[in-house]
Amino acid sequence: MMTYDQLFEQIKKKKSFLCVGLDSDIAKIPSHLLEEEDPVFAFNKAIVDATAEVAIAYKPNIAFYECRGVEGWRSLEKTVAYIKENYPEIFTIADAKRGDIGNTSQMYAKAFLETLDFDAITVAPYMGEDSVTPFLQYEGKWVVLLALTSNKGAFDFQFFEQEGERLYERVLRKSQEWGNDRNMMYVVGATKADMLEGIRKIVPEHFLLVPGVGAQGGSLEEVAKYGMNNHCGLIVNSSRGIIFADKTENFARRAGEEARKLQADMERLLAGRGIVD
Amino acid sequence: MMTYDQLFEQIKKKKSFLCVGLDSDIAKIPSHLLEEEDPVFAFNKAIVDATAEVAIAYKPNIAFYECRGVEGWRSLEKTVAYIKENYPEIFTIADAKRGDIGNTSQMYAKAFLETLDFDAITVAPYMGEDSVTPFLQYEGKWVVLLALTSNKGAFDFQFFEQEGERLYERVLRKSQEWGNDRNMMYVVGATKADMLEGIRKIVPEHFLLVPGVGAQGGSLEEVAKYGMNNHCGLIVNSSRGIIFADKTENFARRAGEEARKLQADMERLLAGRGIVD
Repeated sequence: MMTYDQLFEQIKKKKSFLCVGLDSDIAKIPSHLLEEEDPVFAFNKAIVDATAEVAIAYKPNIAFYECRGVEGWRSLEKTVAYIKENYPEIFTIADAKRGDIGNTSQMYAKAFLETLDFDAITVAPYMGEDSVTPFLQYEGKWVVLLALTSNKGAFDFQFFEQEGERLYERVLRKSQEWGNDRNMMYVVGATKADMLEGIRKIVPEHFLLVPGVGAQGGSLEEVAKYGMNNHCGLIVNSSRGIIFADKTENFARRAGEEARKLQADMERLLAGRGIVD
Repeated sequence: MMTYDQLFEQIKKKKSFLCVGLDSDIAKIPSHLLEEEDPVFAFNKAIVDATAEVAIAYKPNIAFYECRGVEGWRSLEKTVAYIKENYPEIFTIADAKRGDIGNTSQMYAKAFLETLDFDAITVAPYMGEDSVTPFLQYEGKWVVLLALTSNKGAFDFQFFEQEGERLYERVLRKSQEWGNDRNMMYVVGATKADMLEGIRKIVPEHFLLVPGVGAQGGSLEEVAKYGMNNHCGLIVNSSRGIIFADKTENFARRAGEEARKLQADMERLLAGRGIVD
């Protein structure tokens, strides 16, 4: 479990709002790791150890584990347990994008917030209230609801507009009837940073989980300019740019370097806002 | 793999368009099965054997497996393998409601359509085109896209309306740019059967996967009245009403009886339409 205040304290302490995305595709990890008993866990462990100093959150994308069946699930279990045991102050997000009718969402909530004991899970809003609220029943845990995603397909439905209100804005407004800034965050893609200004009018205090910086082309400066609030309010994710920066035996060291580069930029932006010295 | 024509042939042969939902919650299966090595697989195997004569599809809801971690995943693997080996003519649907950015949806597609070898997977549309199309790259496999779901929360966003077009209608129209009636179906809840008439104007030939008959309160008559086309075009799911009809050692026999009752109703509706004698 992790409170809003604990998260903010960690941001101030590490001078960072970096989330490292553990999209640990077994086809892309350094080949020497394939000799390990659990190559993906060995990879994640090394990446975590190399970046924990500057990362405030880890976000395994569940697809990269699920595609390996039972073995992948085991790598995921070990990864979360390793983070929680060695870095209990770090926020863990299951990037699962789940959402189903109430009795089924309850089962997903159990899977990720209880069995695997993640602090948070990403949830898709299409099915509405009863698909989201079961995830909010866990004290100290978080729902990270998809609002405006970073991909091209976001334009297909998320900008659908009724009486001047776009669908993603409707998601932001409507979901505030179900949760609040202490148990709900929103996904807002860095590739649409200029829309953050409007989004902050609807959700001024909420944390936003921002993917799409780096490989997908989003700008950290823009994200901070339009999205940062007095409690930072941002968790910016980078996956490929960190974890696959190098594919040799130096992969962990290079991942650490890339993470520290981002942290240095983040420190400057936090200082500019007066959040850190 | 399963073609449109093979599915229709099976419907005519079995005089049924019944899908049995394997929402096999370990807390709800008969207690004597808990002594088995894999209680959920033992349950599914018995349910499948008792209903295969009248079921044209099985649909495990992935949440009920995922919540049990590695063990749950193993029960799921064994269940799909058992169906494919013993009843290869029956359509298998992973009720997973996945959807993520392109490179991630590719991984989910691999998990369900390749590793587990399901014939179809349910997909959530919120993230648009590149979140859906990776699932369409598998020859002979199907995407079942959420359109209008059976739950109460469906009213939160799916009825959002732009210039007279509702979001679920927009999903039906837009997604036809990505797939066709030979590789795409839609989820339309039985609890909103009166909207099927309008839906059929947009997707006259597509198969519709219809949950919500039974426990959720939808009517089979209404679904057939407004949703059936000349190739039937319907796969109606029942989960709890069949699989948990009885919780004693007679559970499988009772499941078979409940399935045959639904099949008898379906046969009458198919005959009324002239699809079977």
